[in-house]
Amino acid sequence: MTNSENLNQMANAIRFLSMDAVEKANSGHPGLPMGAADIATVLYTRFLKYDPKNPHWPDRDRFVLSAGHGSMLLYSVLYLTGYEDMTIDEIKNFRQLGSRTAGHPEYGHAAGIETTTGPLGQGLANGVGMALGERIMNAQFGDDLVDHYTYVLAGDGCLMEGISQEAIALAGHLKLNKLIVFWDNNSITIDGPVSLSDNTDQPARFAASGWNTISVDGHDQEAITKAIEQAHASDKPTMIACKTTIGFGAPNKAGTNKVHGSPLGADEIAATRKALGWEAEPFIVPANILDAWRAAGRSGESTREAWEKRLAGADADKRAEFERRMSGDLPGGFEQAINDYKKKVSAEKPKVATRKASEMALEIINGVLPETIGGSADLTGSNNTKTSQTKPITPGDYSGRYVNYGIREHGMAAAMNGLTLHGGIIPYGGTFLTFSDYCRPAMRLSSLMGIRVVYVMTHDSIGLGEDGPTHQPVEQLAALRAIPNNMVFRPADVVETAECWELALKSTKTPSTLALTRQNLPTVRTEHTEENLSAYGAYELAAASGDAKVTIFATGSEVEIALGARAALEEKGIPARVVSVPCFELFDKQTPAYQQATLGNAPVKIAVEAAISLGWERFIGENGVFIGMKGFGASGPIEDLYKHFGITAEAVVEAAEKKLKAA
Amino acid sequence: MTNSENLNQMANAIRFLSMDAVEKANSGHPGLPMGAADIATVLYTRFLKYDPKNPHWPDRDRFVLSAGHGSMLLYSVLYLTGYEDMTIDEIKNFRQLGSRTAGHPEYGHAAGIETTTGPLGQGLANGVGMALGERIMNAQFGDDLVDHYTYVLAGDGCLMEGISQEAIALAGHLKLNKLIVFWDNNSITIDGPVSLSDNTDQPARFAASGWNTISVDGHDQEAITKAIEQAHASDKPTMIACKTTIGFGAPNKAGTNKVHGSPLGADEIAATRKALGWEAEPFIVPANILDAWRAAGRSGESTREAWEKRLAGADADKRAEFERRMSGDLPGGFEQAINDYKKKVSAEKPKVATRKASEMALEIINGVLPETIGGSADLTGSNNTKTSQTKPITPGDYSGRYVNYGIREHGMAAAMNGLTLHGGIIPYGGTFLTFSDYCRPAMRLSSLMGIRVVYVMTHDSIGLGEDGPTHQPVEQLAALRAIPNNMVFRPADVVETAECWELALKSTKTPSTLALTRQNLPTVRTEHTEENLSAYGAYELAAASGDAKVTIFATGSEVEIALGARAALEEKGIPARVVSVPCFELFDKQTPAYQQATLGNAPVKIAVEAAISLGWERFIGENGVFIGMKGFGASGPIEDLYKHFGITAEAVVEAAEKKLKAA
Repeated sequence: MTNSENLNQMANAIRFLSMDAVEKANSGHPGLPMGAADIATVLYTRFLKYDPKNPHWPDRDRFVLSAGHGSMLLYSVLYLTGYEDMTIDEIKNFRQLGSRTAGHPEYGHAAGIETTTGPLGQGLANGVGMALGERIMNAQFGDDLVDHYTYVLAGDGCLMEGISQEAIALAGHLKLNKLIVFWDNNSITIDGPVSLSDNTDQPARFAASGWNTISVDGHDQEAITKAIEQAHASDKPTMIACKTTIGFGAPNKAGTNKVHGSPLGADEIAATRKALGWEAEPFIVPANILDAWRAAGRSGESTREAWEKRLAGADADKRAEFERRMSGDLPGGFEQAINDYKKKVSAEKPKVATRKASEMALEIINGVLPETIGGSADLTGSNNTKTSQTKPITPGDYSGRYVNYGIREHGMAAAMNGLTLHGGIIPYGGTFLTFSDYCRPAMRLSSLMGIRVVYVMTHDSIGLGEDGPTHQPVEQLAALRAIPNNMVFRPADVVETAECWELALKSTKTPSTLALTRQNLPTVRTEHTEENLSAYGAYELAAASGDAKVTIFATGSEVEIALGARAALEEKGIPARVVSVPCFELFDKQTPAYQQATLGNAPVKIAVEAAISLGWERFIGENGVFIGMKGFGASGPIEDLYKHFGITAEAVVEAAEKKLKAA
Repeated sequence: MTNSENLNQMANAIRFLSMDAVEKANSGHPGLPMGAADIATVLYTRFLKYDPKNPHWPDRDRFVLSAGHGSMLLYSVLYLTGYEDMTIDEIKNFRQLGSRTAGHPEYGHAAGIETTTGPLGQGLANGVGMALGERIMNAQFGDDLVDHYTYVLAGDGCLMEGISQEAIALAGHLKLNKLIVFWDNNSITIDGPVSLSDNTDQPARFAASGWNTISVDGHDQEAITKAIEQAHASDKPTMIACKTTIGFGAPNKAGTNKVHGSPLGADEIAATRKALGWEAEPFIVPANILDAWRAAGRSGESTREAWEKRLAGADADKRAEFERRMSGDLPGGFEQAINDYKKKVSAEKPKVATRKASEMALEIINGVLPETIGGSADLTGSNNTKTSQTKPITPGDYSGRYVNYGIREHGMAAAMNGLTLHGGIIPYGGTFLTFSDYCRPAMRLSSLMGIRVVYVMTHDSIGLGEDGPTHQPVEQLAALRAIPNNMVFRPADVVETAECWELALKSTKTPSTLALTRQNLPTVRTEHTEENLSAYGAYELAAASGDAKVTIFATGSEVEIALGARAALEEKGIPARVVSVPCFELFDKQTPAYQQATLGNAPVKIAVEAAISLGWERFIGENGVFIGMKGFGASGPIEDLYKHFGITAEAVVEAAEKKLKAA
């Protein structure tokens, strides 16, 4: 290590802010910020393109701290480089309620936090999405407007998590050479040495998936500099293995798991001050060091100004479109296109699976919205996610609009988070609903961050038939509805599917999941409405002929069953109504008066959904009847399964009559 | 390829049974069975140690079809080798309701199906658990009783899923050299060529994690034979990359994604018959070919008999213990030990976190049950999963009882499934409750298979404090309760924790999740009961002083809050009772009379749980009050968080009084 004294002290500023903040909070992770301080110093002083005064500048480089527990590394650098909302008081309030400096970096809490990290491996996969987003936007808007790097700092935990393999393999395949990953190779995990549980040769592993790899001393700033320069020249994504000492500088604890996730303690901090020659009090950065950091923070200003000039000088239409895209606004004409399409299909009344209805809606949407980027985890023909507009993105050619994500649901979901976070793109991606389990941690982060990502989940019940219980979701609808700030749509026909897509695309602060059938369904919305009825979450689809004795609530494929039951009941002289419930979450947001009117006063309330009952109590109350699944599904033809599990119009009628007699 | 005509035809028997069954079902995946038929032929005729007449023989080799969509490969081989419950009629009933031949192999449907597969990558990770289980049992019972291989057939999908990396890295680290994985390298996925989404050099990737790798022509049975022999000689796990042609033999469709997941069609099947020289009618295997297969199926008989002689000749105690272990029965003395411990702690009344209470219970349990194998996904000190009895299992030394699973929740869960499926072992493993999301697909399979696995999930609410919303579960309890046949325990104190552990260990057909706190909790069960009250799922913990006006339901850490609220209400002259609810699923199984008595008739019902409300309606009805979380948590000290989110005894009292006034 041959860093200059000044550079050492700049790195030490990160170290002391971090250890002092953790000490004051009496909680947190000092080890990583101390170990990775040299990497961050090189990156933020010599390479990263950013401007703390204009932190959202679209063509900035992205930096993702995938090892989110090292949050103080990021907060320290943001403070040091002069991000205005990252004050020294925020640093002092590390991990306190209401501070910007949460235990793990939270997207939206402060500028410069590009994504929420902490659940390991997610940031790495977000970085793949961001790097892909950059290439896509570059292909569409050119080098003048979009041309930046994505840097990721990943720890051993990130690389042990399975999602990392999905991310690495996808990035290597797509030759995302503007993605640079630093591996903080400190050989320590929470339980002790990495060798307790792993002996993987990480550079060899990355190389096996088409990465450029470089190994350096992670405390040698010149070596790190050269590695980054070499990475910039590569036609592959680069992994820089940085051998570091966790808790670098702490004389008694460095290099051990004792510095990972606990305050160092006053004595060890004092010893570290001595060892590193740092005389400043806690939370004080010597003026010359702070000045050097602030100067680094200002160095991007001219680059940003030059970019703004290029944007100002661009063709007016191109500029307007770029600005619209980055703002996340939808183009004019979108609603009209959806409405025209609704009018058409409500007249034509096709009998199609909602997965097919989704494809039909997407054919309209993708024609109007150039920002959609489709994809599937290797189920394109099953998820119906591809349209005439979406030619594939291939290695080196990013002008397409379709990502073959491979059999990587988790990597896909996290990459979609990255695509949205990059800006300018609305990603949607498909898999089977049962495999939402495989990408749930990333779906949770879409919800926690409050970002627009659309999950297209087909084969949404036992209605998929012969593939059997491993492929038949029964608890996934409830489990997804359980995630806060996550909209789960289960449309009943071609019209509702278009409406749900419209709602998903308009929802800029909430991700959406579309649960879609494999099997064909009749059009039930046969009268065109300009109004998006699905926006109510639940609405009366078929009124009773008189005072309703029975209300049947249903979603998706079971709406057809509900309508059949209603017809049979009406024929028997029992007035019955059907309420379609495409989205629980939107119904929750309606006025109490609307909710009450929709729930109605019928003495018998029945819900029908080919899934478990959890969550239906709010519609049918304690005395309602639920017709659905009680356990896992089975392998067999669809007709056999619906009969076997008793999810039929006849069963609904029987339950209604029994209940009416008992009443 | 230089296979003898006979061996070719034996492989063709698999091919034709598979394509004919798929054709008859008009649904299924012929491509893999046709492509991997030579591998299966070599394995089942020359290497696999098995006896169809005694399919559960404990020392048999295990074969896992990780690429479960190729189920007809397995069913065909089971029929051909003479497994009695796999009749030709079952083959003809492929994918029909009630058949043993489900779309994907379902554990328990037929002998010879060692695990349920279909969700990709799971079988590979199960195989790691089985191979580890074999080594552990070998270390405990010796070569005479336990000495077998685990073989896995994995496809491209298995290897793209992230879980595969976790499994591969763990197996390589632990040097599980009796694990042999065949990679069905057919270069095709559902969407088309693998090269659409992946360019990973798989042998290099496996080698990077410490595997022996061999590449062969997957249709050259001699080459496959030599590779397996070489694998047997390795001190590492072996991956044999078998270059195959998907749909081998189909003249027009082989080698394309058209044969992956659809029937070939009558014309192509006829053409394949011609091309492969197969004249038999559908579902008919020529007598000489069937005879050869059946002879192979009988060849393990003498090996099995020799093993039985060794078992019979073993020391009586050792034999009895081996048989007990393999039967899954718990040893005598277990209940007494738990009861003695309960008596002790209910008297001592420690104030400890339930994660610590779990460690204390495990210290007793691990002393009585030699079959428990603990572990953690690198959170040993946080999950409190290690006890004095559990020294670590290390590469090459499997005599320990603790697995350092690494930061691999998904791989851990699937490996635990494999440990249980192997037999003789009760695995438990820890992570944070929020990261149940990372292992959910494997947890679902524990439930679907109905096997005893114990998930120790600590840091079970906002009570974990400063780590913030990424680490704070709010929806995970509901999401886990949503999985059928999955018991979710959330004990309130040291006594309930012991009771829940007892229930989890006695539950041989249902996996269990223990949700445990980071923060300390008082002992609330201060009077010893011989009876396991948690077995009721919910029970009255504190009665009201008179006719109850308020019932407060609570779980885990919120039982303390409920008791505080009850005391305050009673002081105000409002009779109130507290019902502790350690397990929803067990309460569901009680008699209606017990349920009704426990729910009670108090006019005000309140539930308190530091999580979302989903599922609580069944306790508090439509008019009840839920005190808990409405969205994600936040980073801050625990006291601040409980106050901020309004989960306090004061809030319960206030809600109760408001409700009583309104009534």
